[in-house]
Amino acid sequence: MRALHFDGTAATVVEWRDPVPGPDAALVRVSLAGVCRTDLELCRGYLGFRGVLGHEFVGRVVAGPPEWCGQRVVGEINFACGRCDACGQNLERHCPSRRVMGIDGADGAIAELVAVPIANLHRVPDSVSDEHAVFVEPLAAAFEIPAQIPIEPGVRCLVLGDGKLGLLVAQVLHAAGAQVTALGHHDAKLAVLARRGIATARSEAFAGEPAPLVVEATGTIAGFRRAVALTRPRGTLVLKSTIAAREPLDLAPLVIHEIQLLGSRCGPFPPALRALERGDVEVDALVTARVPLADAESALARAAEPGALKVLIDCC
Amino acid sequence: MRALHFDGTAATVVEWRDPVPGPDAALVRVSLAGVCRTDLELCRGYLGFRGVLGHEFVGRVVAGPPEWCGQRVVGEINFACGRCDACGQNLERHCPSRRVMGIDGADGAIAELVAVPIANLHRVPDSVSDEHAVFVEPLAAAFEIPAQIPIEPGVRCLVLGDGKLGLLVAQVLHAAGAQVTALGHHDAKLAVLARRGIATARSEAFAGEPAPLVVEATGTIAGFRRAVALTRPRGTLVLKSTIAAREPLDLAPLVIHEIQLLGSRCGPFPPALRALERGDVEVDALVTARVPLADAESALARAAEPGALKVLIDCC
Repeated sequence: MRALHFDGTAATVVEWRDPVPGPDAALVRVSLAGVCRTDLELCRGYLGFRGVLGHEFVGRVVAGPPEWCGQRVVGEINFACGRCDACGQNLERHCPSRRVMGIDGADGAIAELVAVPIANLHRVPDSVSDEHAVFVEPLAAAFEIPAQIPIEPGVRCLVLGDGKLGLLVAQVLHAAGAQVTALGHHDAKLAVLARRGIATARSEAFAGEPAPLVVEATGTIAGFRRAVALTRPRGTLVLKSTIAAREPLDLAPLVIHEIQLLGSRCGPFPPALRALERGDVEVDALVTARVPLADAESALARAAEPGALKVLIDCC
Repeated sequence: MRALHFDGTAATVVEWRDPVPGPDAALVRVSLAGVCRTDLELCRGYLGFRGVLGHEFVGRVVAGPPEWCGQRVVGEINFACGRCDACGQNLERHCPSRRVMGIDGADGAIAELVAVPIANLHRVPDSVSDEHAVFVEPLAAAFEIPAQIPIEPGVRCLVLGDGKLGLLVAQVLHAAGAQVTALGHHDAKLAVLARRGIATARSEAFAGEPAPLVVEATGTIAGFRRAVALTRPRGTLVLKSTIAAREPLDLAPLVIHEIQLLGSRCGPFPPALRALERGDVEVDALVTARVPLADAESALARAAEPGALKVLIDCC
């Protein structure tokens, strides 16, 4: 099969061995895959990954248990062991010996075929197109927030960052009943939210009060500092993006204002699928480009350009 | 009156103007005061404070409303405005225009007399000695943890730091039903906890599993990093000490493991008074030295010595 492979130096489209799914896994023919910022970081050495990239996909099962064959599916990316304490507590996404599709120890989905454990598969309803379903994985990450903390109806909420994740988080929290203001640097991106009835502001011009719920989705130290300053005493600051830079950071404000800083990563697929089925979340406007698998290398370059949102890759 | 005054350069015992309490305040003759690490930081320029130091005290009301005169009292240190949104939500300790006794905008209690708002006073039961009551303020800070989060019976908990606050936190969480292991560097301090039936370990030798509840009370960046590494995925890390040093810090593990980092500062006085009344918490062993007010300057020096715990000052 063809696949976008990272060999430790460069990501290139190559002929690669077909995945061989184990007894508890299915072989999926990928229809559409998405490029995530994590893919770009992996190509800069993050986690020392080598293998096929990609962890956002929709496809159809072509081999595996009969009840799954022919099904259109999306798949959760953490491949858990199923036997440890974490797995026993339904914390599969935190299984210490997990492999992660296209990120850590398992080949990914920017390829013609990908092997996925049955336990990780979710059927896609007919009413959800491939173009929407490919957003389930990042949208699930946004749904992790209401899975972690209760969203009080009407709670004032600031979302910092108008990248893909920020735009999804703002919509999910808006749909969950929060009174969201999204802060960003790009008028065109903020306009996506404004069309959904979500308040927006240029980050540098925002002079509103600190809020009880703040989400940091800029991925920068400057964004984190701003987010701390915009969180009300006793408020909750959700950290959605791993801040890889190791820069000085003063944690004293977290103590003085008794802020709850909550790390938040992968999330549940079912509410993401439901939201797409009901049209609660706009994703079409988040697509910057769509390219065939043969041009996947250019897809990475395109995704790395300033202002880019989601780049999709046709894999079949 | 005599008082330990910090003029921006040095802390010295001086003759100082008697406090003049407003209509909603009482004048308290201080019996015993305690030295806190914050006092030492104020003398290094923290918050730019000028005035009488001290925010841990027990004393007797000598002027104020008749129902308070003659009462033996302790006092909460945040002097709130009582009129703002925060105060309206019972968040007086986070009132944005609060003054803080001996720390920010209000004279403190290492003095013969101190003025304290009536709303901040708590009567001390006869069965609680001055020597115990002077610990109510730091003990209340330890009780802030069970006020912020539920302590599941038997939950495995690691307390990092065997300074005053760490020793109080370990005892409070032990009494609240957690299965505590206290980690520190000082055998003599850890022995105080071991005598109360609390598991202890030399921090450098500890090789136990990450825990669902971890408290950082070392006040150091190294301690914070260790605390993050010792917090289980989806666990809670309580940050009890303001980490003033601005050093590089990688927040990615908080996101990857979805850790809840919870800042925790001043706490409720009533449970602290009850715990002292019932003998739930050992404080006698935490006293390193006791000196008269005339020697208060030496008390600060003594409190700054390595290994020192609480230094008390007789103020009358």
